[in-house]
Amino acid sequence: MSKKITIFDSTLRDGAQAEGISFSVEDKIKVVKVLDEFGISYIEAGNPGSNPKDLEFFKGIKDVELKNSKIVAFGSTRRRGIKPEEDDNVKALLSSDVDTMAIFGKSWDFHVTDIIHAELEENLEMISDTISYLKSKGKTVIFDAEHFFDGYKNNPEYALRTLEAAASAGADCLALCDTNGGCFPDEIAEISKLVCSRFDIEIGIHCHNDCGMAVANAVVAVEAGVTHVQGTFVGFGERCGNTMLSTVIGALQAKRGYECVKNENLKMLMQTSFKIAEIANYKLFKSAPFVGRSAFAHKGGMHIDGVCKSPKSFEHIDPETVGNERKFLTSEVAGKSTIISMVQKIAPDIDKNSPETALVIQKLKELEFNGYQFEGADGGFELLVRKTLGKYKPFFELVHFKVIGEQPYDDESASAVVKIIVDGKAEITAAEGDGPVNALDKALRKALEVFYPSLKEAHLTDYKVRVLDSKTATASKVRVLIESSDETDTWTTVGVSKDIIEASWIALVDSIEYKLIKDLEKKYKTFL
Amino acid sequence: MSKKITIFDSTLRDGAQAEGISFSVEDKIKVVKVLDEFGISYIEAGNPGSNPKDLEFFKGIKDVELKNSKIVAFGSTRRRGIKPEEDDNVKALLSSDVDTMAIFGKSWDFHVTDIIHAELEENLEMISDTISYLKSKGKTVIFDAEHFFDGYKNNPEYALRTLEAAASAGADCLALCDTNGGCFPDEIAEISKLVCSRFDIEIGIHCHNDCGMAVANAVVAVEAGVTHVQGTFVGFGERCGNTMLSTVIGALQAKRGYECVKNENLKMLMQTSFKIAEIANYKLFKSAPFVGRSAFAHKGGMHIDGVCKSPKSFEHIDPETVGNERKFLTSEVAGKSTIISMVQKIAPDIDKNSPETALVIQKLKELEFNGYQFEGADGGFELLVRKTLGKYKPFFELVHFKVIGEQPYDDESASAVVKIIVDGKAEITAAEGDGPVNALDKALRKALEVFYPSLKEAHLTDYKVRVLDSKTATASKVRVLIESSDETDTWTTVGVSKDIIEASWIALVDSIEYKLIKDLEKKYKTFL
Repeated sequence: MSKKITIFDSTLRDGAQAEGISFSVEDKIKVVKVLDEFGISYIEAGNPGSNPKDLEFFKGIKDVELKNSKIVAFGSTRRRGIKPEEDDNVKALLSSDVDTMAIFGKSWDFHVTDIIHAELEENLEMISDTISYLKSKGKTVIFDAEHFFDGYKNNPEYALRTLEAAASAGADCLALCDTNGGCFPDEIAEISKLVCSRFDIEIGIHCHNDCGMAVANAVVAVEAGVTHVQGTFVGFGERCGNTMLSTVIGALQAKRGYECVKNENLKMLMQTSFKIAEIANYKLFKSAPFVGRSAFAHKGGMHIDGVCKSPKSFEHIDPETVGNERKFLTSEVAGKSTIISMVQKIAPDIDKNSPETALVIQKLKELEFNGYQFEGADGGFELLVRKTLGKYKPFFELVHFKVIGEQPYDDESASAVVKIIVDGKAEITAAEGDGPVNALDKALRKALEVFYPSLKEAHLTDYKVRVLDSKTATASKVRVLIESSDETDTWTTVGVSKDIIEASWIALVDSIEYKLIKDLEKKYKTFL
Repeated sequence: MSKKITIFDSTLRDGAQAEGISFSVEDKIKVVKVLDEFGISYIEAGNPGSNPKDLEFFKGIKDVELKNSKIVAFGSTRRRGIKPEEDDNVKALLSSDVDTMAIFGKSWDFHVTDIIHAELEENLEMISDTISYLKSKGKTVIFDAEHFFDGYKNNPEYALRTLEAAASAGADCLALCDTNGGCFPDEIAEISKLVCSRFDIEIGIHCHNDCGMAVANAVVAVEAGVTHVQGTFVGFGERCGNTMLSTVIGALQAKRGYECVKNENLKMLMQTSFKIAEIANYKLFKSAPFVGRSAFAHKGGMHIDGVCKSPKSFEHIDPETVGNERKFLTSEVAGKSTIISMVQKIAPDIDKNSPETALVIQKLKELEFNGYQFEGADGGFELLVRKTLGKYKPFFELVHFKVIGEQPYDDESASAVVKIIVDGKAEITAAEGDGPVNALDKALRKALEVFYPSLKEAHLTDYKVRVLDSKTATASKVRVLIESSDETDTWTTVGVSKDIIEASWIALVDSIEYKLIKDLEKKYKTFL
């Protein structure tokens, strides 16, 4: 029997407090659609009292039909000495015209007396009045008990009285907040359990990650009886972020049988995370639990061997449950079985004991010894296999290139001249850029697009440089990784040289040839 | 009363299993020095049986004197049917010639029968034999009980017998591993407590972050009686990473009074994390608990107001405890005290409230906003302070330089021409090199050595490139860090530009000027 958990996402409100995060109204609407599609219950979208952008959002969102989610407006209890109906913030909340409101109020006595300078009883009235008023307007009200755990640790009786004030006024849910993120799981579990035993309405949990335990704190609260979990989908928020909901959902639903979203939606967990990260222009870290690209990536030979014998030996869940996939990293630590599966994608007739497999492994080791690295460089690895097996021919011939960088400079600091030949026809061209690699990249594409117009669809999406054995300083070898994308795919290629221009050139050429092979394959289904 | 916790860092072993992480022998030695300086008890440095690079490391590390840390070699129990003294892996372990060994063995019956295909009793002998043999050689032995929690959940009696086999054979510590990272805090707490009550020797915890709860799991294990915590300093490791030790240390020591390192060292927590991330060329995320640049960054107006009234209102600890600082994202007010101590090294008469201090902070912020980073760039920071305070004059004037890279090439792939003026005298010269930066470096030195022969004593010892905001691909900004040494000193300088040649040039010029200032100071005791 599965127990239903209400998920409350605050990506657009608490998440927008993160350093470097800023949403336009259109971004916000996009995020709402993604979360609704996935099946999140509540989407806290902003504070209509705090800025005009949020007000505009609430206007715009009325025209969007939602299948699963309710939009929540966020605000605070009324100010001191003002009736709720006359408080600007409360008025702005109502102007949002949504059915659900999250109202935060003070639960820590120290905050009441020292930060907002109110009397303790007065604060209880502020909570009670505001909620009663919103209930009289027919709203669903979630009470965010700010600093509830710190408050409880300092003055348990008063902290509980703030919850009672909210509950008596008709609040539909009491969300216990660890606003400073300083609590440990033992405290969260104990205090949540006590609150759940005292109240008959829904109890929620809202954690911050300042001690790196926001996910665990939410999980232990649920195990203690809480049924409403607040957080942000990919975890960002002020300071160290909020509870990362993708992890909580993965953990509770894939491992403990709770129902946070419909079971058939769980496999959209990874893709939902990527979409939200993309809209927020936030780089989701590879190692993110459940949804990161490395979450099920195995490198150690013994682990790879174990997973091949039985996936559960080194995997806590089946990656497909959350829409992710298993990955064997190609590296000196990896064994034959990792490589063979990739070789077979290009040459299905080759097996573990074929001489071609040995050749590929030998070539791989040689290149890795020279500083190459193919884990994550899928495109580069495919070209390596093709070249080793003879399933490759070059798409162009380089006659020469020359790049010039100079200081001082007028416009751009570097220029490049490239001459290539395709099918006997020569093309010479030049370009300027920010630095030699950028200039060379532009010139090469310009020349090749004459022959291969489909290259216009592809563009570089990531460029990384790693100095190997940096002791030899500016004469060190560098490894360049280039990620490219077109409308349907993303691939990574690699180049190594003592000269950063040469290393970039190698990765660049591979990246372009990978795209051209892909296009050819699409056209003819088989290549060579 | 503080309770001592042994910290066991596996950045160089389990951390090296992370996607994209690869250490050279020199990198490994640098990491050891940083961890030793901070006061980590054990540094697991590699598996001498698995690759020749690790073997070379163990040779090299013998000449490094350590103040706090013990180096640990990692390996497994002997193979089936082979005596420990004849097992290659065990022999390799001993050849590492260190005093402490971590040995992993199987604690999950399913792994014994289905992965290594051994009898259950046989596995107990493998554990026992191996440990007895290593103890007979006088080693300290830590037994890593692989998959202990999964094993315990499947067959508690057998899992405990594997620990008993290790303990009876003389193991000094039993480390309970959640190898797949699938356990929840409640399970970890309960099972750890039981194990602690059964054994008289040190019990350790080793967690993985597949459910986002590795830190919490380590913390609840400690609260259950465990006194030895394994992890990796900045958290990287296979799949979703290992327990992030910087967070565990921050949480246990700053908040619960445990002693993981000497109390006076805790304020080095942030800087230690950055140094390790830098060596690994790993981007430490800004929101990292305790040590991230955003960990104490406040954006919300109400939060900033609260913190100004009383820091504890929205901060769970004082940021300086861990060497971090408060940051207000709207009204930029930075931690003056951090910077003042560095300024006073150059201008002892300047204090916190001098207008010069404000100028330095403003300049620093401007540069950091543009991608500069001065942690670890001591030389670059000194020059920045000098330039801001007017305690600087250039040692040469650049008239122009031009670098040319080309393919195909005969001898070296790049050449550079540099023209400079020193004291009214011009010098033009050229050099070839491996790539444009190397050629430029050589040419500049050649020209300057005519005027400053002492430059011959200095040479570059490290060169690092980090692409910032790599999404803009080859037009991204890059940050170059250059480390230089002469007979007595080592210093690091930094340059940022969209053009790698320009970024390298800035760092190169600073590096040379730093050397020349140092020489002048030595000669005249005071400069300017």
